[in-house]
Amino acid sequence: MIFVLRADAMESDLQDLRARLEGLGFVVEQMSAMGRSVLGLSGDLDPTRLESVKQLRAHPAVADIHTTLRSYRLVARSSANESRSVWLGDLEIGGDAVVMMAGPCSVESKPQLFATAEALQKAGVSVLRGGAFKPSTSPYSFQGLGDAGLELLGEARQAFGLKVVTEVMDPRDVEKVSAVADLLQIGTRNMFNYDLLREVGRGTRPVLLKRGFSARIEEWLLAAETVATQGNDQIILCERGIRTFETATRNTLDLAAVPLLHELSRLPVVVDPSQGTGRRDLVAPMSLAALAAGADGLLVEVHPDPVEALKDGVQSLPLSDFLSWQPTFQRVARAVGRTLGPESRVR
Amino acid sequence: MIFVLRADAMESDLQDLRARLEGLGFVVEQMSAMGRSVLGLSGDLDPTRLESVKQLRAHPAVADIHTTLRSYRLVARSSANESRSVWLGDLEIGGDAVVMMAGPCSVESKPQLFATAEALQKAGVSVLRGGAFKPSTSPYSFQGLGDAGLELLGEARQAFGLKVVTEVMDPRDVEKVSAVADLLQIGTRNMFNYDLLREVGRGTRPVLLKRGFSARIEEWLLAAETVATQGNDQIILCERGIRTFETATRNTLDLAAVPLLHELSRLPVVVDPSQGTGRRDLVAPMSLAALAAGADGLLVEVHPDPVEALKDGVQSLPLSDFLSWQPTFQRVARAVGRTLGPESRVR
Amino acid sequence: MIFVLRADAMESDLQDLRARLEGLGFVVEQMSAMGRSVLGLSGDLDPTRLESVKQLRAHPAVADIHTTLRSYRLVARSSANESRSVWLGDLEIGGDAVVMMAGPCSVESKPQLFATAEALQKAGVSVLRGGAFKPSTSPYSFQGLGDAGLELLGEARQAFGLKVVTEVMDPRDVEKVSAVADLLQIGTRNMFNYDLLREVGRGTRPVLLKRGFSARIEEWLLAAETVATQGNDQIILCERGIRTFETATRNTLDLAAVPLLHELSRLPVVVDPSQGTGRRDLVAPMSLAALAAGADGLLVEVHPDPVEALKDGVQSLPLSDFLSWQPTFQRVARAVGRTLGPESRVR
Amino acid sequence: MIFVLRADAMESDLQDLRARLEGLGFVVEQMSAMGRSVLGLSGDLDPTRLESVKQLRAHPAVADIHTTLRSYRLVARSSANESRSVWLGDLEIGGDAVVMMAGPCSVESKPQLFATAEALQKAGVSVLRGGAFKPSTSPYSFQGLGDAGLELLGEARQAFGLKVVTEVMDPRDVEKVSAVADLLQIGTRNMFNYDLLREVGRGTRPVLLKRGFSARIEEWLLAAETVATQGNDQIILCERGIRTFETATRNTLDLAAVPLLHELSRLPVVVDPSQGTGRRDLVAPMSLAALAAGADGLLVEVHPDPVEALKDGVQSLPLSDFLSWQPTFQRVARAVGRTLGPESRVR
Repeated sequence: MIFVLRADAMESDLQDLRARLEGLGFVVEQMSAMGRSVLGLSGDLDPTRLESVKQLRAHPAVADIHTTLRSYRLVARSSANESRSVWLGDLEIGGDAVVMMAGPCSVESKPQLFATAEALQKAGVSVLRGGAFKPSTSPYSFQGLGDAGLELLGEARQAFGLKVVTEVMDPRDVEKVSAVADLLQIGTRNMFNYDLLREVGRGTRPVLLKRGFSARIEEWLLAAETVATQGNDQIILCERGIRTFETATRNTLDLAAVPLLHELSRLPVVVDPSQGTGRRDLVAPMSLAALAAGADGLLVEVHPDPVEALKDGVQSLPLSDFLSWQPTFQRVARAVGRTLGPESRVR
Repeated sequence: MIFVLRADAMESDLQDLRARLEGLGFVVEQMSAMGRSVLGLSGDLDPTRLESVKQLRAHPAVADIHTTLRSYRLVARSSANESRSVWLGDLEIGGDAVVMMAGPCSVESKPQLFATAEALQKAGVSVLRGGAFKPSTSPYSFQGLGDAGLELLGEARQAFGLKVVTEVMDPRDVEKVSAVADLLQIGTRNMFNYDLLREVGRGTRPVLLKRGFSARIEEWLLAAETVATQGNDQIILCERGIRTFETATRNTLDLAAVPLLHELSRLPVVVDPSQGTGRRDLVAPMSLAALAAGADGLLVEVHPDPVEALKDGVQSLPLSDFLSWQPTFQRVARAVGRTLGPESRVR
Repeated sequence: MIFVLRADAMESDLQDLRARLEGLGFVVEQMSAMGRSVLGLSGDLDPTRLESVKQLRAHPAVADIHTTLRSYRLVARSSANESRSVWLGDLEIGGDAVVMMAGPCSVESKPQLFATAEALQKAGVSVLRGGAFKPSTSPYSFQGLGDAGLELLGEARQAFGLKVVTEVMDPRDVEKVSAVADLLQIGTRNMFNYDLLREVGRGTRPVLLKRGFSARIEEWLLAAETVATQGNDQIILCERGIRTFETATRNTLDLAAVPLLHELSRLPVVVDPSQGTGRRDLVAPMSLAALAAGADGLLVEVHPDPVEALKDGVQSLPLSDFLSWQPTFQRVARAVGRTLGPESRVR
Repeated sequence: MIFVLRADAMESDLQDLRARLEGLGFVVEQMSAMGRSVLGLSGDLDPTRLESVKQLRAHPAVADIHTTLRSYRLVARSSANESRSVWLGDLEIGGDAVVMMAGPCSVESKPQLFATAEALQKAGVSVLRGGAFKPSTSPYSFQGLGDAGLELLGEARQAFGLKVVTEVMDPRDVEKVSAVADLLQIGTRNMFNYDLLREVGRGTRPVLLKRGFSARIEEWLLAAETVATQGNDQIILCERGIRTFETATRNTLDLAAVPLLHELSRLPVVVDPSQGTGRRDLVAPMSLAALAAGADGLLVEVHPDPVEALKDGVQSLPLSDFLSWQPTFQRVARAVGRTLGPESRVR
């Protein structure tokens, strides 16, 4: 850790700073170059101390603090060939096979959910998505079926042998949702909701952590780290677009996050091209792009009849369209050395 | 409500759309101009129906849906001279007097809090701010003193006769925090946390709703509406800067939000220039600017010794600096027809 | 075109508005629904009149103006199977074959340029990129070799039979650069420089129009339209990332722009993954993603030895790495029904 | 200048880096702390060398380069009490008196311009603004009257004794516009147009440099530096809002830039609340806020009849409204120790 000192720092402030740092147990060395001085610190530096020492930016002698230590470590990649797999029972996410997760934005009814689940299962999709608790910008729009939706997801899980991913919004619901879901989704609006993160971190269900639509990569990894510090390190990251000035699409899908996270972190990364674009016509091309960028999975909103959708029909792919794209998805996955779906492994 | 139809809409789709709308109980009129057709809808349109009807954007005959109805109504301004006051006991926020809220980022110790509170009280500041539960991007940084911090706030409240505003992050803590705080702060990271919003909406404590750093004005008003739908309409909005591409400041303080919200909403609006800039040297000028823009109050981070601060010292104003700025704050408030309250009311 | 009227519009204002619109030659119909009135306009509406009529948003009776007419038409897509090809002599861009454009950020010396050009030519790359005039944020950084760089590009073009793309920044240089370049690049900082756009629009050289890093898709198409209105409609769009709050990458590459532009416009779209990410390690995965998203070409910064680069070495791919990725590029191109490079067509 | 080395740097790379730096004439010292090594450089470091050395970020041994040297120096503030005045003839900008600049978005006709100029002169406004050459996103909207508009500005300047500020877009027009204008405006779209910046830098007319709507503060200062390197250091900065995700206003006015630029730079800073908000109703409150934040002047779009405006009427303040706000502007200016000039200087 390097402290760059202010050129106009008073000697008394400098003494005070050194004394504080030494009081914290660091060995402090000073070096000057080009009229500027820096202090180099040696000593133990766990993340908690690091955060505490960083507060000294407020000190009058300090121009800047420089560290290349990562602010996260449990979710960091430690070696180039470290596995990044997370398992949902017998289903691996982060291995050679790319995992397809699909389903409606919201669970609306048993016929809607079951028709979808049946078609997905036949197509070799492994994970059924569907919201029972829906965060809605407007208090007047559909908020999901709640417990009844959760129950339907449980029934579909049984009936079709699919894994289920669904969102949990309230820390008080974690236990209830964990009883049904194979994978707990933290939605984009809750990525900065630290009490919820800690609550799912204390559980044992794997967590799908969506990127906050205004979160920097590092903040996202720190949110994952917050989950991991509580004991649960089965975390999957989901890129779903960020908010920018562009209005032609609902979000700007940041696919560069996929290879970047693969470098920085040991966690698998999936991509949601539905939220990521907000336009049905862009879902398939962005799915292909995500696969080419190295995504470990896709999370896609599909609906038997998007016009009837109670929410986000405008970005839902008709189920039949989704199915017809599978061969192209498969070709692109193979072009980059992956395969699509667990089924594909045995073909 | 106007539905603009696609130029290439098929007649069958058009019939289907009309049937759906009439099925919803609307009287539908059609008008064509410049080769485009629009449907005009008459009938009751409460906000819930509005949200539901908007889902028809997914319909193949629809190019666009146009409404000038506001998506919120409980927090909307209904007339130009409607009062926007919220009361913390006998303290009015939104009246002629501008209300000053100040205190440390975090409650750190009794000496720190009491020294601050005493000085603020002497200077005529009405509301003491201070965090007991702190949301932190890093799980390794200071998370606040928690219950002990809350207790200290309660003691300072008693000792100095100040109102207290402090953040609540977890819906399970609302009752506990309400027992101490005069005003419950919803922090920027939780503006989209709808379960928390509903929980404080079911209570009776006034709510200080900070703008999400990535929230559009309309989303912010809808968050306030979410609180209000639960029964609690004592809501104060707090502009605290938004996230942009600029890196010279921590956030970009959007002061135009102040007069805009005064037009759109009946809620008072206060400004946080500390979070809004992240730089101690900009806090005073941005406080002045906020007052000139019509803010109903300021929320300022002050610390007896920012170098010692456990969190955000870099943006905390030394207590002595803050006090020396009061006459200038007062002059600007008066220049725009306000006073710096509440003492100013009796002068 | 639909004018939505203010609910509180005075009758005199309404009369005034109708009179103005009728004075402009429109037939005006009025319709009311849900307590709101709209005016529908019939009549000729060329783009110039459209822009003029839009100014009436300032009228006191007008709440909003609604049109689904596109603001551009020369660059719009008129039918689903319209060709989008632009030709650089015998080289087609926008056809089945994806065109690879590569070369150094800046032309630095004859050895650097020729080593690069030779290797690219052998690898079947068709277009050599390289900057002679460089826009630099700092007046103290390398500004390119200028005329000498242009001359070297001309020599390399001759020696290796490659097409050349290079940037023109000043309207006074258009003629000079056109004498050497097969394709004139308008850089991201000049996308809003309308005098430059008009100048290249008056010429005959095809134009590579990079997206302004802060430009919305519609503004980008209007910049292309500005070129086209001057007579030159041989325009290629180049997505190169937009500026967002994310700091882990230099820009956020907006790949959804590729399929979206293919819908909206008849112009080919290429992608620059070097500027788009600013990180050497992300160039190859984002190249693959761009190909999968349907890009008509790639524009990649390569350098024989990036450490020696006078500019942007940090985002330049070593030439050898670039060459080793070609088979993977080819596989992904084929997976989505394209081929790589003109050579590949005859293999 | 500090080079932080990669923890995994190979010894040979490290030797290579030291050799390169010493070859550049630096004395290099090495220091290690906490398992990381840094190199400190001593030696002459002018801005050109600084930019060149920064390119070594591409070196395999380098993790990061750290400097607190500013990248600009001609426009930097060198001492706390340095004057920041720029003079338009006998009119000081940057002194105690705040300078009001007002006028129509575009020069439309002699009656429009003269009516405006006369009223402004009577109200004590010193500078008339008005566009003759207008940058327009759409090629189909009004582009300004061009030379005829310039001529009208010259006539108004004579007739009313006002200073004139007007935009120049094309480097070929600098001489022509300089013959009429007292102050050359570089518009927001051209802040990154370096050939234009250099051209006005070679002239003698003071320059009003608007912030690019996507420019960081540092880039803006570097644009000013680019002008200054050519000899013309009479530069006024104009904050006019930046592009963000917010859609309720046309731009987000970044008033914190005013005090920040006053710290960093010796240049005066004026604010354009018209472009900065895009809404007529927000212009006056944001003018007040700008004054309170310490702005050295305001640039306001006014129009005798905004409904008739050929461009941007929606954000133009009716002339009569503008005049009626003057006393409040004056009160706020005085509250922060300024006056509303220039008349105020002699009072």
